[in-house]
Amino acid sequence: METVNLATKFDLIREHWSPKIVGELNGQYVKLVKFKGEFIWHHHDHEDELFLVTRGTLLIRFRDRDVTLNAGEFIIVPAGVDHQPVAAEEVHAVLLEPVSTLNTGDVTNERTRRELERI
Amino acid sequence: METVNLATKFDLIREHWSPKIVGELNGQYVKLVKFKGEFIWHHHDHEDELFLVTRGTLLIRFRDRDVTLNAGEFIIVPAGVDHQPVAAEEVHAVLLEPVSTLNTGDVTNERTRRELERI
Repeated sequence: METVNLATKFDLIREHWSPKIVGELNGQYVKLVKFKGEFIWHHHDHEDELFLVTRGTLLIRFRDRDVTLNAGEFIIVPAGVDHQPVAAEEVHAVLLEPVSTLNTGDVTNERTRRELERI
Repeated sequence: METVNLATKFDLIREHWSPKIVGELNGQYVKLVKFKGEFIWHHHDHEDELFLVTRGTLLIRFRDRDVTLNAGEFIIVPAGVDHQPVAAEEVHAVLLEPVSTLNTGDVTNERTRRELERI
């Protein structure tokens, strides 16, 4: 059992859009990620995904609307729902999703990260 | 899909030791709870449990040591591990655990909450 300090772990992250694993429970990973700029549109066929913002403002575009998340706010994106995260300025976010979840969902490209580092 | 503001949801909670459901994903509940005082010793036979403190300082006693969590820190208590949360002053915490998890684990007493409110 390890006590995880979110700020200390975020300090270790240098790259944007590259989630790091900081915890595992009940088949789910807790991940930390720094966003800056525009990600790709994607969805996860079988996995719901939670985004909790701890710093900055995250815009998530959905096909029918945009949602803005500030620090201390979260949203759960259900499986199958297309979404595109966009961060005008750097955002720190906690992700919660099954161990099987790939960051780019149904898309594979240069932003896909398969072997996530544990920090 | 709902955007959840943690502070706004915590403002709705009046009772200590009574977790409220604020989200569900992949068979897990996201719960918010206010702690104050000393809870009972218990464990969860089959469920890992995450405690993320957002306000105050939470002491969690284990059989072999004590752990202190400040705001912005979390710990994952594995299934089967006895623990006792203690809050000298009020603590706000986010819990993550399977839908099946009972707050008092292997113990049933006056602090057991079976029908959790969604807020």
